[in-house]
Amino acid sequence: MNKQLILNERPKGMPDSNTWKLLESPIPDIKDGELLIQNHFISLDPAMRGWMNDSKSYIEPVQLGDLMRAGTIGKVLQSNNKNFQVGQTVMGWSGVQQYTVSNGEGLYPVDDSQLPMQKFLGVLGMPGMTAYFGILQVGKIKEGDVVVVSGAAGAVGSVVGQIAKIKGCYVVGIAGGEEKCKYITNQLGFDAAIDYRSQNIFDAIKETCPKGLDVYFDNVGGEILEAALSRLRKHARIVICGAISQYNNIDDMKGPRNYMSLLVNRATMQGMVVMDYANQYPKAMQEMGGWIMEGKLKSNESIYEGIENFQETFKRLFTGEKLGKLLLKVIDK
Amino acid sequence: MNKQLILNERPKGMPDSNTWKLLESPIPDIKDGELLIQNHFISLDPAMRGWMNDSKSYIEPVQLGDLMRAGTIGKVLQSNNKNFQVGQTVMGWSGVQQYTVSNGEGLYPVDDSQLPMQKFLGVLGMPGMTAYFGILQVGKIKEGDVVVVSGAAGAVGSVVGQIAKIKGCYVVGIAGGEEKCKYITNQLGFDAAIDYRSQNIFDAIKETCPKGLDVYFDNVGGEILEAALSRLRKHARIVICGAISQYNNIDDMKGPRNYMSLLVNRATMQGMVVMDYANQYPKAMQEMGGWIMEGKLKSNESIYEGIENFQETFKRLFTGEKLGKLLLKVIDK
Repeated sequence: MNKQLILNERPKGMPDSNTWKLLESPIPDIKDGELLIQNHFISLDPAMRGWMNDSKSYIEPVQLGDLMRAGTIGKVLQSNNKNFQVGQTVMGWSGVQQYTVSNGEGLYPVDDSQLPMQKFLGVLGMPGMTAYFGILQVGKIKEGDVVVVSGAAGAVGSVVGQIAKIKGCYVVGIAGGEEKCKYITNQLGFDAAIDYRSQNIFDAIKETCPKGLDVYFDNVGGEILEAALSRLRKHARIVICGAISQYNNIDDMKGPRNYMSLLVNRATMQGMVVMDYANQYPKAMQEMGGWIMEGKLKSNESIYEGIENFQETFKRLFTGEKLGKLLLKVIDK
Repeated sequence: MNKQLILNERPKGMPDSNTWKLLESPIPDIKDGELLIQNHFISLDPAMRGWMNDSKSYIEPVQLGDLMRAGTIGKVLQSNNKNFQVGQTVMGWSGVQQYTVSNGEGLYPVDDSQLPMQKFLGVLGMPGMTAYFGILQVGKIKEGDVVVVSGAAGAVGSVVGQIAKIKGCYVVGIAGGEEKCKYITNQLGFDAAIDYRSQNIFDAIKETCPKGLDVYFDNVGGEILEAALSRLRKHARIVICGAISQYNNIDDMKGPRNYMSLLVNRATMQGMVVMDYANQYPKAMQEMGGWIMEGKLKSNESIYEGIENFQETFKRLFTGEKLGKLLLKVIDK
């Protein structure tokens, strides 16, 4: 039997137990040209919250009654498709379910002989690619830049900060709680950490970046974005990657009141969507793989188990109760 | 006697009769290397409101008790400086006064044999330069782009729209009132006009730009910026030039709540300060002069008289009771 999660109701604010419905159905037989994948890990990403709203975005919303969209990694169980062999590891967009029948479209074989497969949903997956292209091509960092990143202990932010360190920047990470702050400075080599839960974010940015900042990589929006705007240096770049503080905020979405700092400082605020860089993924993955092997790029996954626990696990994206990449292991034992 | 206006009190919100004080004092004698200028026109610009706040910006604030800073144009009355001759027209930052003694620093001789001197404070002055560099180098317009500009009947906006037309764009101007809307379409050749006073700005942008917009040149901020953000095309550019709707808004400065449209549309919002382009002014003035001569670039000045009327005239920047460049004629008859 295959267990899958369908979108049952569009959430207002934080998703709850009515948002998704768990269905069970027999695993279908595969036809000519198809293959059957057993999904091992489901990727949980803040962007998924946006896909559940019925509004124009960079991607179609998930429709009510449809399988919940998600990035996945798993192994080929059966194959009638000459491009895929049984036992091969493949990643793609199989959605929140245990088994997927596919014609192979949008599936990528992955060589996980050197690294555990879950890394391909994290540091070598969408979050890693987002960090890589966001900080290098949108943030345009150069040696000596002062770089501030929010969501710094998360799947994207942790990679952003490490790449900036590799490139010779001074890096300040903003995260929630002492444990995460210690993680990014002690384990990942950030120059400084700001705990937004216990510190005044405006004062803390001023203290850690006395001369202001050149690049701010924003995963969170809200007040932290305003604090960063208040400390821009001339020609600063703000990378708009996400706004997790606002995703469940239905009535009172906040814009940065001090955006005129962009004028005063001749600064740029630019949005990015990682899929635009798809044709450059292979080169990026090669470079990132090299950094991982050299020990320059570390990563962590918070792995929870059981497709039944999807909703509870998903909430951790917004409460922050996880470290690095959040994953759900859905393979039956 | 020289009449001059000094900053008497920092305004909260809109400046009033206590903001400035009129002083009268004898015109000083000039020393070696100095010259005496009789100012003809004072430039009134929205940016002046910002210079009156005691806060860090791209330029030092005007101090209490100091002469109010302003761009000016006038003629040399006396000269002990070999670089300037009596009778020459000069522009610079002489401030809100009738006569200025200068050592020549920051003064530029102007050839006004072809055009009335007031044009050098408008279409060929800071507003014209702001429009030129803002729309070409920050907005990066190209043929066929859909360009929307706010404050479209103003000194900057009117030039922005005409340059975009010259470059082959489809141009929509946003202005307040029927007269201004007719002016920009009938006189200046804009493709469409939106009257933000009588129309719903969100609907009107949707109607005039059914496929969205490529460039939004913002002089006003507030709700109009949000409306523009709601209709961005992929890779759109927003030029942040001003936020006149917010300059007197002390308690409740608004940020664009839907700035995440930058992410969805991979768009850029960039601030600019015209002074950064000073070394390119001569080339720009030459090109703009050519367009004026060819009749492709039109401009209007709203000229009021009398230094005593400075405060009342200044308010017109914010009430919108003027067309094109706002000037105060301060020469005694």
